[in-house]
Amino acid sequence: MLLKIIAIGKLKDKYFRERCDEYAKWLSPYAKLEIKELPDSTPEKEAIAILKELEKDKGAFIVPMAEEGQQYTSRQFAELLDKAARKVVFIIGGPNGIAQEVKQQAGKLLSLSKMTFTHEFARLILLEQLFRATNILNGGHYHRD
Amino acid sequence: MLLKIIAIGKLKDKYFRERCDEYAKWLSPYAKLEIKELPDSTPEKEAIAILKELEKDKGAFIVPMAEEGQQYTSRQFAELLDKAARKVVFIIGGPNGIAQEVKQQAGKLLSLSKMTFTHEFARLILLEQLFRATNILNGGHYHRD
Repeated sequence: MLLKIIAIGKLKDKYFRERCDEYAKWLSPYAKLEIKELPDSTPEKEAIAILKELEKDKGAFIVPMAEEGQQYTSRQFAELLDKAARKVVFIIGGPNGIAQEVKQQAGKLLSLSKMTFTHEFARLILLEQLFRATNILNGGHYHRD
Repeated sequence: MLLKIIAIGKLKDKYFRERCDEYAKWLSPYAKLEIKELPDSTPEKEAIAILKELEKDKGAFIVPMAEEGQQYTSRQFAELLDKAARKVVFIIGGPNGIAQEVKQQAGKLLSLSKMTFTHEFARLILLEQLFRATNILNGGHYHRD
């Protein structure tokens, strides 16, 4: 499985960075993960940069994170990944959120929670859930229903 | 505002511990926070220990975390805290979850997401949302709708 995260803004917080790196390492036996950070900018410029980046991902299943998106249980999320295209691209916006032009590319809009998280926190949760999903799909013991 | 978190199990992961300590520090101008860790055990023994601990919190608003609980937006969560009793006690179970006898003490059952998190991760999310809530209630700039 090929996974990619397009994220607006860098992960500045060292605790989050270390933890995200660790989840990425845990993921590595199960999936190839690429993280592409794009600079914080105006909503218009961010949208242009994301759409340009997505040109590299033709045929991929595109999953922008948005509060109005659908929520999944961890097991449903694993099934979504399992049924999706060979490559799945998640998009985490910055404080401006994600522009409508980008959301229109979505195979699915994903919401992690009704609560608001910082983009750094959203990346940490997404990585934990990606590791959890691959663990579910590979019959590991990390997840218990 | 008095906040207390009763948690089953220690926060072993150093990244989570450092980050939780930081949110607790950020919270400190707004609320007095107490964290009480109780040992991992059988569901029955955990329930007895939690109920015994709750005897110290008469009159408090009790909020066990449970996947079947209610989800709130960050702003709704802030309003819940604002309207609650002077003291609010959150309960985070371990891998066994929280026993029915404890849930019966609840003023409200709270769910963070449909997704499953480890108890360490749940504590991190709860602390971030508690800081966010106090920031909302005090007119800070950490939260944007």
